[in-house]
Amino acid sequence: MAKKIKQIAIYGKGGIGKSTTTSNLSAALSQIGLKVMQFGCDPKSDSTNTLRDGKFIPTVLDTLREKSAVKASEVIYEGFNGIYCVEAGGPAPGVGCAGRGIITAVELFKHQKVFEELDLDVVIYDVLGDVVCGGFAVPIREGIAEHVFTVSSSDFMSIYASNNLFKGISKYSASGGALLGGVIANSMGPPYSKEIIDDFAEKTATQIIEYIPRSITVTQSELQGKTTIEAAPDSAQAEVYRSLARKIADHDESKAPSPLEVAELRSWAASWADSLLALEQGKIVSAGDSI
Amino acid sequence: MAKKIKQIAIYGKGGIGKSTTTSNLSAALSQIGLKVMQFGCDPKSDSTNTLRDGKFIPTVLDTLREKSAVKASEVIYEGFNGIYCVEAGGPAPGVGCAGRGIITAVELFKHQKVFEELDLDVVIYDVLGDVVCGGFAVPIREGIAEHVFTVSSSDFMSIYASNNLFKGISKYSASGGALLGGVIANSMGPPYSKEIIDDFAEKTATQIIEYIPRSITVTQSELQGKTTIEAAPDSAQAEVYRSLARKIADHDESKAPSPLEVAELRSWAASWADSLLALEQGKIVSAGDSI
Repeated sequence: MAKKIKQIAIYGKGGIGKSTTTSNLSAALSQIGLKVMQFGCDPKSDSTNTLRDGKFIPTVLDTLREKSAVKASEVIYEGFNGIYCVEAGGPAPGVGCAGRGIITAVELFKHQKVFEELDLDVVIYDVLGDVVCGGFAVPIREGIAEHVFTVSSSDFMSIYASNNLFKGISKYSASGGALLGGVIANSMGPPYSKEIIDDFAEKTATQIIEYIPRSITVTQSELQGKTTIEAAPDSAQAEVYRSLARKIADHDESKAPSPLEVAELRSWAASWADSLLALEQGKIVSAGDSI
Repeated sequence: MAKKIKQIAIYGKGGIGKSTTTSNLSAALSQIGLKVMQFGCDPKSDSTNTLRDGKFIPTVLDTLREKSAVKASEVIYEGFNGIYCVEAGGPAPGVGCAGRGIITAVELFKHQKVFEELDLDVVIYDVLGDVVCGGFAVPIREGIAEHVFTVSSSDFMSIYASNNLFKGISKYSASGGALLGGVIANSMGPPYSKEIIDDFAEKTATQIIEYIPRSITVTQSELQGKTTIEAAPDSAQAEVYRSLARKIADHDESKAPSPLEVAELRSWAASWADSLLALEQGKIVSAGDSI
């Protein structure tokens, strides 16, 4: 019997550290002996850069534009520690659906039985999450990914994007769509950032998989075009990514989340804003107490 | 003869201050006696909030979901100084095209001859610019807007989004699409931020319409749910927005830009990164000199 490939989609608002987190996760998973493919699904096509010394690779859509028949091996590039790197790419700006690269690339690989031939253990789709329109929902909707994780900071716009993602997951969860594994809490700083994201996870019936602190080590590594796992393997931050990787490797049960309605989300955010203001003015000790 | 309505679309990466700039522009245009409609085209539907004391309004798509026939007057709300506020809204997350709200709302208004009946001088479309997929290109492609402006800081991701927008404009410019008015340079801080954005504008054959400094006055105004024009009319920042409004009111000639290819844009950014590093190390006096 063929082994089951773990297919994971990671969503999150642009600029939130999604590709950074994904690349470090891939790097750490590869180091525990798993065969990993990282599949960038953002039209910017920079998901896998830090697995390849900061270098860009040609995208599936760009390659298909140049010639009609493409072999999967022409768009798969080897990265750090043998990780297979792919960038789906996007349509020409202003034309067509931004999710088309994902659909095209996944179908190409499926047709050529790439995942089986490479004997992969894990495929990670790194998907843009600002606009969860139909195109970007492909990995969820078509049951391509089995588990979805969202990278979110405690900023409202990031939580808003995660909540929209939860809505998308809920919509397709009854018809074979992907389910939610949990939240990867990123850029954790002051204590209240953890309280906010914990509260959001509780309200939406999900869990925090890992808390990743804000860290200058990550910035230093990225400036070298590398993941923290590669550039600073002995750092505390690398250990956090390894912990995340172990949890994701062991994770096997995802579920449908309970997203908030927009009005609920806004009043939730407003009550947190009030709490933080009170906290700043020394009125209460913990922002969480007033919720 | 009916007067010509000036129809403007403002694009820019999410989080770059696009709605802030647009709302201040609308407010300042209304104060020079023009009848203005601000048309929010982001599925988040928060474009017009600061024109209405921080309050959200029902979107066109939400209203259409509740009942089949909608009169335009049911989705147009009065904001600061008589500005007409509209939010197109978006589809349910993960379903359909994120640009559908724009198309639906514009067709509803066109059908009901709303712009003519309200005797508008200016309609400003505030459009999400992270992913210039087909949906969000509607105001450009269909010739709905005549002039397009992009709000951009000197950050690479913001410039990347603007360059993608320029590609979209170029594509449709020969077939009656909108043309580019220029760049509204936002969050201007240290001298090099102006040099970077100037250089980008020169390279892409466009112009900077206004330089808007980073300002705490803007944040303070927004925390009160207001534009700076309303909350701090005597501030230097309000005067900058009034200057922008005068320039946009007088603007009548837009043109097709010359977007950079992705590889050109990346090497351009890399050379700026080198210049800034050298600047920081005191090697050169002006970052612009080395370009």
